[in-house]
Amino acid sequence: MPASLPDYSRQELRNLVRIQLQSLLEEGDFRGAKAILVPVQSADIAEAIEGLPEAMQAIAFRLLSKTEAIEVYEYLDSTIQQALIEEFKRQEVIDIVDQMSPDDRARLFDELPAKVVSRLLEQLSPEERRATALLLGYEAGTAGRIMTPEYIALKETFTVAQTLERIRSLSPVTETIYYLYVTDTARRLTGILSLRDLVTAQPHQTTGEIMIRDVVFVHTDTDQEEVARLIQRYDFLAVPVVDREQRLVGIITVDDVIDIIEQEATEDIYALAGVQADGDNYFQTNLVTVARRRVVWLLVLLLTNTATGSIIKSQESLLSRLAVLAAFIPLLVGTGGNVGAQSSTVVIRGLHTDEIRTLGAVQIVFREGIAGLILGTMLGTLATLWAYWLQGNLSVAIAVGASLLAISVLASVAGSTLPFIFRSLNLDPALMSAPFITTAVDVLGVLIYFNIARLVLGM
Amino acid sequence: MPASLPDYSRQELRNLVRIQLQSLLEEGDFRGAKAILVPVQSADIAEAIEGLPEAMQAIAFRLLSKTEAIEVYEYLDSTIQQALIEEFKRQEVIDIVDQMSPDDRARLFDELPAKVVSRLLEQLSPEERRATALLLGYEAGTAGRIMTPEYIALKETFTVAQTLERIRSLSPVTETIYYLYVTDTARRLTGILSLRDLVTAQPHQTTGEIMIRDVVFVHTDTDQEEVARLIQRYDFLAVPVVDREQRLVGIITVDDVIDIIEQEATEDIYALAGVQADGDNYFQTNLVTVARRRVVWLLVLLLTNTATGSIIKSQESLLSRLAVLAAFIPLLVGTGGNVGAQSSTVVIRGLHTDEIRTLGAVQIVFREGIAGLILGTMLGTLATLWAYWLQGNLSVAIAVGASLLAISVLASVAGSTLPFIFRSLNLDPALMSAPFITTAVDVLGVLIYFNIARLVLGM
Repeated sequence: MPASLPDYSRQELRNLVRIQLQSLLEEGDFRGAKAILVPVQSADIAEAIEGLPEAMQAIAFRLLSKTEAIEVYEYLDSTIQQALIEEFKRQEVIDIVDQMSPDDRARLFDELPAKVVSRLLEQLSPEERRATALLLGYEAGTAGRIMTPEYIALKETFTVAQTLERIRSLSPVTETIYYLYVTDTARRLTGILSLRDLVTAQPHQTTGEIMIRDVVFVHTDTDQEEVARLIQRYDFLAVPVVDREQRLVGIITVDDVIDIIEQEATEDIYALAGVQADGDNYFQTNLVTVARRRVVWLLVLLLTNTATGSIIKSQESLLSRLAVLAAFIPLLVGTGGNVGAQSSTVVIRGLHTDEIRTLGAVQIVFREGIAGLILGTMLGTLATLWAYWLQGNLSVAIAVGASLLAISVLASVAGSTLPFIFRSLNLDPALMSAPFITTAVDVLGVLIYFNIARLVLGM
Repeated sequence: MPASLPDYSRQELRNLVRIQLQSLLEEGDFRGAKAILVPVQSADIAEAIEGLPEAMQAIAFRLLSKTEAIEVYEYLDSTIQQALIEEFKRQEVIDIVDQMSPDDRARLFDELPAKVVSRLLEQLSPEERRATALLLGYEAGTAGRIMTPEYIALKETFTVAQTLERIRSLSPVTETIYYLYVTDTARRLTGILSLRDLVTAQPHQTTGEIMIRDVVFVHTDTDQEEVARLIQRYDFLAVPVVDREQRLVGIITVDDVIDIIEQEATEDIYALAGVQADGDNYFQTNLVTVARRRVVWLLVLLLTNTATGSIIKSQESLLSRLAVLAAFIPLLVGTGGNVGAQSSTVVIRGLHTDEIRTLGAVQIVFREGIAGLILGTMLGTLATLWAYWLQGNLSVAIAVGASLLAISVLASVAGSTLPFIFRSLNLDPALMSAPFITTAVDVLGVLIYFNIARLVLGM
């Protein structure tokens, strides 16, 4: 009913649903509450339920039909999925969990206590148990863990008409029908076929005749981020997953990939600000966890500043004679840290998004060094002028400007080098670079400053 | 040929293609060069071409068949697309540009000089010109600009068999056939139908009987980021775009959405490090542009530090008497800036990814304030101990610890408040928050420190 929607955005509609739902539940009008949920999309019902007071979430969820309940459950935030599981009677839980798609179920099981998982696993139907155990057997963050075993496999000898018939019968239990996979007798992947190719082919042709043989696939142990890049690169809707023997074991669809790209971006963004990302929603974790996720990086800073502070303390006699030198420390340390952060940020992001492509590490570091030189010259000139204006001593002003130039170059080079070093050590550049760069730039920055100052001032 | 691939990753294969291609071109073996490109995916050929020396790019591109050339061209980086356009003869350009899909073409035209665009537009076939002009008429960053008008529209009275026939004939010229759109006589969108629903329906049913009437759609002026969130939220493969009169004018597909999510994440990441993102690949822009994109933020820092420096300078007499106070300035300013950055980062990311959901601004700021208190207490205690160990003066140590506590709370509150303020002023929180927080925390930080120090030390 698009004609009725133009005056509301989807966001407003969702809020409306949540508010109506809450007031109907408060009045005990369950029939009314049930009625307003009928025409609403599952993702929106999930959000409405998330917005309700905790006590009402289970009640609202129970108003849904069984099919709806399963769909809505898959869209809920994992903390609320867990809370609901505890509220439900045993049979309700089994009904819902058994119907979830294996990849979503594996994700839920990752969050639940081990005891609950093993109890649930026992009670699943044999087929679903096998599918879930398969996924849980792969390491978190790999293709094996996020794939779904619910795909359509064909033989090369099938005709187009036979294949369409097979799709009709399998459609309800597969994740996607838009790609079809062709395997040989040993279940090895030999080709791929899109539904698009199929509907435009002649009914008597065989899948072997129309399939594409140069299949892009991933292995079960391929990193999930690499899978995401691959799908993004080739504009695929899904990618097949094979085991070591090239046997097809699952597929990964584009909707999961979007979530991975977003999650990885959040992790990188958090890492740059020194907040640990553990996959949970930051705003739904308690304050102790929040403090824990933020304090590590702050402690690193504290340690770094212990070194910087000790260096400044060691220059106490110089500072007592010329206290104004202290006025420029925040400028030098701050600018240096920021130039370094800029360089490492563009390199880290470039490594993650493939933007760097064919450029080598040496080229990039050289480029960043030149950029640091340009920026340092501009900033150093301005800083010299300002420092002279502030205190009228040309030697001090020159020491500040020269230090800023040296620190900019150093920071750019260090900022662009460290991500490559960490990557070659198989460490995540995003997680490791920021603390090291800040430490290096801060400590070396004040050292450079005091040495240049002593040199210029002849002290 | 999956069986031949296990020993190479796709990345290695791509490098191999590029290296072989380059050496064949250097030897003048065009036939060989052509042959190695035949079994390679378009996206990989595009990357191989991007990796070649500039002079060879046009030569390699000319080796491709016409159909291949169009596909490969769409995958090339926009700077190389531009360079190739200048190399080509007029007719070659028209052939390629005319065959591009309208959304990719609009994206290319955004980058080209206006003169070239108007010349190219004139020479397109009337239908393609109309499609492109339509897209270019919408503002950059909106749904209208990124949509494609190449979709399949149906009437409610069509039977399943008729629809399948229509798909067969239209398949080559549409972006996706997996969603079909039903419109009334005034071209208003009335329903949507997936190919999945279609192949599982009976041939004699009409589209009106099996279509879904509660269509999620966007308007031509909807922000592209909102479109991306919508597709991500509902796990769609495409979303229809309507004009003010609810007439269907285009669709946006999931592959474009992945690129938008990635691009927006890059913009946010760059913004947090103070690098301006302008949509171009950072590593392919010249160093002057690089310096321009980075210097603005560094100048803001310089200005901020002018204020901080002036405050420190004004305390020259205090510092001459007790130079050790200077040793703690980097610690206080650095930690304060970082606590503020953490708070603003999680809030900005939360606003962008919907993680904040139903929490209000007041709740969030309060939560962050408490987090700042916890972090400040922990860090303040440690800083007091360290400051005492460093210089043995208890009053100074207490002044340092107390300042750190006050600065942490201030930074958390400021860091979480500013993104909400900027959003309510319709400014991008990611772009605006960092400079303001650093300024506020630095300036207020040193003020707090010196005032507490004077108070505690009785000076």
